[in-house]
Amino acid sequence: MFPVTLYKKLKRGPQVILLKDASTISAYTGVAPGDRVLDAGAGSGFLTIYLASLVGKEGKVYAYDIREDFAELVRKNVEKAGFADRVELKVGDVFEKIEETELDLVNLDMACSEKALPNAFAALRAGGYCTGYHPNVEQVKTFVTVGLELGFDHIISLETIERELLVRPHGCRPATTGLTHTGYITILRKPKEAAKAEGKGQ
Amino acid sequence: MFPVTLYKKLKRGPQVILLKDASTISAYTGVAPGDRVLDAGAGSGFLTIYLASLVGKEGKVYAYDIREDFAELVRKNVEKAGFADRVELKVGDVFEKIEETELDLVNLDMACSEKALPNAFAALRAGGYCTGYHPNVEQVKTFVTVGLELGFDHIISLETIERELLVRPHGCRPATTGLTHTGYITILRKPKEAAKAEGKGQ
Amino acid sequence: MFPVTLYKKLKRGPQVILLKDASTISAYTGVAPGDRVLDAGAGSGFLTIYLASLVGKEGKVYAYDIREDFAELVRKNVEKAGFADRVELKVGDVFEKIEETELDLVNLDMACSEKALPNAFAALRAGGYCTGYHPNVEQVKTFVTVGLELGFDHIISLETIERELLVRPHGCRPATTGLTHTGYITILRKPKEAAKAEGKGQ
Amino acid sequence: MFPVTLYKKLKRGPQVILLKDASTISAYTGVAPGDRVLDAGAGSGFLTIYLASLVGKEGKVYAYDIREDFAELVRKNVEKAGFADRVELKVGDVFEKIEETELDLVNLDMACSEKALPNAFAALRAGGYCTGYHPNVEQVKTFVTVGLELGFDHIISLETIERELLVRPHGCRPATTGLTHTGYITILRKPKEAAKAEGKGQ
Repeated sequence: MFPVTLYKKLKRGPQVILLKDASTISAYTGVAPGDRVLDAGAGSGFLTIYLASLVGKEGKVYAYDIREDFAELVRKNVEKAGFADRVELKVGDVFEKIEETELDLVNLDMACSEKALPNAFAALRAGGYCTGYHPNVEQVKTFVTVGLELGFDHIISLETIERELLVRPHGCRPATTGLTHTGYITILRKPKEAAKAEGKGQ
Repeated sequence: MFPVTLYKKLKRGPQVILLKDASTISAYTGVAPGDRVLDAGAGSGFLTIYLASLVGKEGKVYAYDIREDFAELVRKNVEKAGFADRVELKVGDVFEKIEETELDLVNLDMACSEKALPNAFAALRAGGYCTGYHPNVEQVKTFVTVGLELGFDHIISLETIERELLVRPHGCRPATTGLTHTGYITILRKPKEAAKAEGKGQ
Repeated sequence: MFPVTLYKKLKRGPQVILLKDASTISAYTGVAPGDRVLDAGAGSGFLTIYLASLVGKEGKVYAYDIREDFAELVRKNVEKAGFADRVELKVGDVFEKIEETELDLVNLDMACSEKALPNAFAALRAGGYCTGYHPNVEQVKTFVTVGLELGFDHIISLETIERELLVRPHGCRPATTGLTHTGYITILRKPKEAAKAEGKGQ
Repeated sequence: MFPVTLYKKLKRGPQVILLKDASTISAYTGVAPGDRVLDAGAGSGFLTIYLASLVGKEGKVYAYDIREDFAELVRKNVEKAGFADRVELKVGDVFEKIEETELDLVNLDMACSEKALPNAFAALRAGGYCTGYHPNVEQVKTFVTVGLELGFDHIISLETIERELLVRPHGCRPATTGLTHTGYITILRKPKEAAKAEGKGQ
């Protein structure tokens, strides 16, 4: 069991992916023990750590960030979580290169992430997933459009909204203020058979 | 990686817990490989299978249902998912007895689930979680009230709303109809130190 | 056309009813020019002013508040809105007495507002509406239960959620933080035929 | 008081604007007795009738639809509502021409409604509002962009979500299925001073 209270003790640099979104990414793609996944635009490392907690000791998370200071932040947070062994940190640009192959999942969380889709497609195993996390609708559309051109299947784009229910002796009600939007999650899938991947449009 | 398309092929008897809710339960409690968890009111077995996909080969899911026909349905679905080894099925009433101890998580999904809280408390390890899934607000309130009396900490009660974003060349928009409520998820935690568990109210 | 920017210039004492909720109250009950409506628990007078803008010169809004300081605040705001002629202010307790009769609408916004339902029922014309505004679910339930016992029909209870869409050249998305709950609106109706009003339960 | 149950008895042709959206349009623009408003793309006439109920006998609603069959549908529904005197029906194309001037509000509900914005701007009084109703995000963006170029102020774009709360003796909860999206409402305003209207961008 991963000690979830640890998330609050981690250092935050760039915007983090919240549990509601991290868990949607993992649930819709079926992340399981032993998986090899890549988290690009790792930011503060929250999703990296969440994924590391799921893939277990036999799994691996490759965490890319283009900025050295962010990668250093991820490193510290990953160590605090006790996942140094199962997380491999890389300062690198996934638009240029993804070194891994036969991955189960590639998550892309950065501006213009559609530019990483060709490398993501090549790095995934057949049947593997590429997920995108985007605040704006236009980004989702571009991501899906480019993904379909490359041969990905578009499984779904969605947002998740969490509403806390305040439970008090004198009355129950939803919380009055809070987050009203974080980002859209898009789930693309590399077809199981390689043949499908060539020249497939929508 | 768990083949998520399998969920659509499973047989459905009683109401299933959707991925959006199953993933909230697991993410907020930190379910990880090797965990031993209990799913009471297993119904059609969707949450059982989801949890089984997360705890891995070294983990264990104990799935209770009071009705033999539902337990049989769970058994078939669990076999189809290939998790017969890591899921132990029990036809039994958790209001009466929970045989396991030192569990990481107990999920309760049945009418009057607060009646199972004493047994759940006893069956959990210190620091373990008990989650409740309830359609109605009154059920949440009773569950939280009884849980606090028993010494649980109330972490949060919440609902999750998923909004699909339709992405089409001619325009993007949220889907026009769909689910607007499933159930509230309540997260209770057994305190880490046994001392806290005695005589603790809100 | 009522100058809606004026709402921002009004003084705020107690919690105000926002336009999203005020407009739901008026739309579901059909408030129109010439109507005679009562706003009890007028608070800062926002709903009073909104209703005054709809009932026009021939209509009337009776604004009750039990606290003299709140009634004074309403008076100042109503004057600023230019509606002194069509709003009649009363420092009074609607649990004790409602002086008006044959009203089209009575809105109740106060703790234990179900206690005002008998007076509201008597004050309404046949076919008139009584609306309640409640933050907590339990309040809604009590209000509906008492209303049904008195012979009201329960039209609907609902909440309204407004999501701003940020429209920017670089991207569109929902606003990231904001209000996530204000209050539930319950619409009760006094039956058109007096006969129905006697001894009617759900 | 407008008999709101009448909406259910009206004939429906094209998609109607629901009360939740109609009331948002009127509340954010301050529609009041005596106003002169235009509803273009009147469709089945629901918004036309709603606006007619608000502007009263001294007000006027000009309802445009380009299709004769839709205009005929509006005519029948308007008659059923008893508003034949205050609604003027026109079969016409607002992209080509709007005959009225000094209007308080122009609502546009049709594909490519941005093409009607120049005529709407000319037809509005200073300080008047132009509202757009669009299912897709891209439409909102285009509408706002063109509106700003023409000299409109962009007040807000938003969507409204209504959640019914089911209130039953055995438990309260939100309804389980329903509408999850209708359309975005965009509120543009013609500046009060004519000077502002020339050559103003964002």
